[in-house]
Amino acid sequence: MVEPSGSPLHETGPFVWPVRVYYEDTDAGGVVYYANYLKFLERARTEWLRAGGFGQEELAHEHGVVFVVRRVEADYLKPARLDDELIVTLRVRDLGRSRIEFSQTVEKKIVLMQAAVQVVCVGAESFKPVQIPAPVRERIERIS
Amino acid sequence: MVEPSGSPLHETGPFVWPVRVYYEDTDAGGVVYYANYLKFLERARTEWLRAGGFGQEELAHEHGVVFVVRRVEADYLKPARLDDELIVTLRVRDLGRSRIEFSQTVEKKIVLMQAAVQVVCVGAESFKPVQIPAPVRERIERIS
Amino acid sequence: MVEPSGSPLHETGPFVWPVRVYYEDTDAGGVVYYANYLKFLERARTEWLRAGGFGQEELAHEHGVVFVVRRVEADYLKPARLDDELIVTLRVRDLGRSRIEFSQTVEKKIVLMQAAVQVVCVGAESFKPVQIPAPVRERIERIS
Amino acid sequence: MVEPSGSPLHETGPFVWPVRVYYEDTDAGGVVYYANYLKFLERARTEWLRAGGFGQEELAHEHGVVFVVRRVEADYLKPARLDDELIVTLRVRDLGRSRIEFSQTVEKKIVLMQAAVQVVCVGAESFKPVQIPAPVRERIERIS
Repeated sequence: MVEPSGSPLHETGPFVWPVRVYYEDTDAGGVVYYANYLKFLERARTEWLRAGGFGQEELAHEHGVVFVVRRVEADYLKPARLDDELIVTLRVRDLGRSRIEFSQTVEKKIVLMQAAVQVVCVGAESFKPVQIPAPVRERIERIS
Repeated sequence: MVEPSGSPLHETGPFVWPVRVYYEDTDAGGVVYYANYLKFLERARTEWLRAGGFGQEELAHEHGVVFVVRRVEADYLKPARLDDELIVTLRVRDLGRSRIEFSQTVEKKIVLMQAAVQVVCVGAESFKPVQIPAPVRERIERIS
Repeated sequence: MVEPSGSPLHETGPFVWPVRVYYEDTDAGGVVYYANYLKFLERARTEWLRAGGFGQEELAHEHGVVFVVRRVEADYLKPARLDDELIVTLRVRDLGRSRIEFSQTVEKKIVLMQAAVQVVCVGAESFKPVQIPAPVRERIERIS
Repeated sequence: MVEPSGSPLHETGPFVWPVRVYYEDTDAGGVVYYANYLKFLERARTEWLRAGGFGQEELAHEHGVVFVVRRVEADYLKPARLDDELIVTLRVRDLGRSRIEFSQTVEKKIVLMQAAVQVVCVGAESFKPVQIPAPVRERIERIS
């Protein structure tokens, strides 16, 4: 369960990760292509996991699990542009047995895009939902 | 307004567009990367517009407008994999003054991913919402 | 060895594959992003292999091999743009024991980009060069 | 002209830029997709320009120019993988009137990929080669 009080990280706000916009991220409209924001969100989730002590490779090979995205609700409010230095934020809204719900934003002073992302812990081979392994869960609780 | 009856396209079902999965679309999990489904959805929307007589370039340069994505709700049900021959479907759920709501799926016999996508017609330079130009709207009504 | 005579495909010219340019392929310069041409080249190589009877999945799982790119020499002559309907071409220039050299272009009436691409057959797990499996090689000779 | 002696940057070696590998960069082979290394190379070139005082937007809007890639020669030696922390390096090999030639690598202790990249300064609208603007050139000479 996400218990904000007592969590030192939470008290100082959400997890944040900086992202710079390069040509690769933009499209002919002159703005960041809408699918690419999802890459930014995932970079922040990956770095948040890493801050908790887990690389994606380690999750797959040592714990036999992968977190896959089950649902995304994304609102695109204002476009991000070439050279922008964005901040991606992440908060754990809910931590279930095999599911984590994140509240995320992409910001540049104001919120440009906000999203609710639900990931599910699945077997790295089976892709079937499994319980989040205890050592992983423990760390996640600590950083949520 | 989306007026299904009388629309020959509608009677034969949604607009469909085939998409083949290449290495570029997959990730180290062995499945299609979650952001890349959004590319597939957009290819179908673009081809649907083209079936209605409009290329993206033409929209921007002749009509001065671009359709930008304002909101996406996506459910990832089953993973798509390398070499898969997918079908992307599109239905217009609602057609507003400047906004179009699509119901879309990515299928391979069964539905792998489904999404509600809201796009807004904006000025190609200003990125502010504008009314869908009459000739564009007329064609959209015909193919919706 | 590439033995052109007797190959019906060769006599009618190179293998060709159409590619449509979508927003996903472009960047804020208004043209196709330079890395994305490499995706187009690979789609043509994949479809050429498929025309020879092999999917990428099948190569990896039935024959235990993957073709990985070892070297690319690419000349970008003219930019491709949104909505362009491109033709990607492919010719086998040389077929070695474990290596295939392709000559490829991306065209829109004129050649926009040309590339020499060298791929090597490697073990799907080891990523070490291996001989092209005989049944694969046989088919490749037929379509080269 | 690239005049190494006297250049403080050069004396301490090439320009370097760290890149972390995320799921978005990998493919179903479990390694970084070959086109995506070109994104990494371009991030380093962009940051090198920024270190010289120029953002890409600024180049386009204040100086009316864009650097476009004219030629790439890339050798893929060893695959990069998920979670890898890569170093991208950049050296200016030659600085012409409108052309810059870079020598670049992607490394992880050893060199995984090396490339020679030729970019040309073109008008942001015309896409025709133009002389590198004097203030830009001056800065480039200082950091080359």
